[in-house]
Amino acid sequence: MAGRANAVNLAFAQAGTEDWAEIWEIFRRIVATGDTYPFPPDISEHDAFLAWMRLDDPCEATFVARIDDEVVATAYLKPNGPGLNDHIANAGWMVSPDHQGRGIGRPLAEWVLGQARDRGYHGMQFNSVVATNTGAIALWESLGFEIVGTVPDAFRHASEGLTPVHIMYQQL
Amino acid sequence: MAGRANAVNLAFAQAGTEDWAEIWEIFRRIVATGDTYPFPPDISEHDAFLAWMRLDDPCEATFVARIDDEVVATAYLKPNGPGLNDHIANAGWMVSPDHQGRGIGRPLAEWVLGQARDRGYHGMQFNSVVATNTGAIALWESLGFEIVGTVPDAFRHASEGLTPVHIMYQQL
Repeated sequence: MAGRANAVNLAFAQAGTEDWAEIWEIFRRIVATGDTYPFPPDISEHDAFLAWMRLDDPCEATFVARIDDEVVATAYLKPNGPGLNDHIANAGWMVSPDHQGRGIGRPLAEWVLGQARDRGYHGMQFNSVVATNTGAIALWESLGFEIVGTVPDAFRHASEGLTPVHIMYQQL
Repeated sequence: MAGRANAVNLAFAQAGTEDWAEIWEIFRRIVATGDTYPFPPDISEHDAFLAWMRLDDPCEATFVARIDDEVVATAYLKPNGPGLNDHIANAGWMVSPDHQGRGIGRPLAEWVLGQARDRGYHGMQFNSVVATNTGAIALWESLGFEIVGTVPDAFRHASEGLTPVHIMYQQL
């Protein structure tokens, strides 16, 4: 395997409550660093579950990516807004800190984009891509997203202080 | 009075559940036209209450503007996002269709901006200003907001079809 992206044997699946313990372990560690997601770094497990797990509506889903039987990454897909905005998808991704650099992000993102297309979404929008998260921005751009706006000071970065966030979009 | 903005005798107050019947009448009529807010045009009263009424957290509020004893406009104020984004306010405004053109929007907006400053917010962000809503955009720009991004196709306008939305921001 040797860390080559296309050699990682990933299995994608829609998540259920039985996956939450593994998802929470990833979520907790990613959010605790306060440098990519706006969730409170000390978020409670209950609030994290409500924020991440999309189990009830066919337009929404939470996903896991596994290597062998271990959950190594997770993502959610949901409408970006209500009613007359619900043809635009929103999504988020987290790769386990133990498995970053293995090329998991790109195939997971491609798979979630496919799930969004399958559900008939017209486009996908990210509302809060932290400007210092250059690796993620480069990945989204390589997958067809464009920065369509930037809000100054919108993220209180743990080490950088007030940091802009980008709005990114692509038509599907 | 003769419709002069500065002659309208508006009284602003934080709303409570006792104001909901009047707020709902405004909300229902504004949303039904499908040209400014993404809420489903046929939204249920229950969902509208949950979306608009911010009663429990001191960082949030719903407001009413009255002329004499009649509610003629309403607004909400809340954090734009969780945790590391909660220093940025989000707000929304609705003026009763029976009272539009009387100059109510500007003093209400100024009052809500003052409420956001009083609560210590660093900035205010709108996430979904429909591009055809030029009157609102001109008002926000005259109050210090800038368009910081535009998402194509994000709003299914009742008569215009897929329409861009602007993200607008100002530091407080």
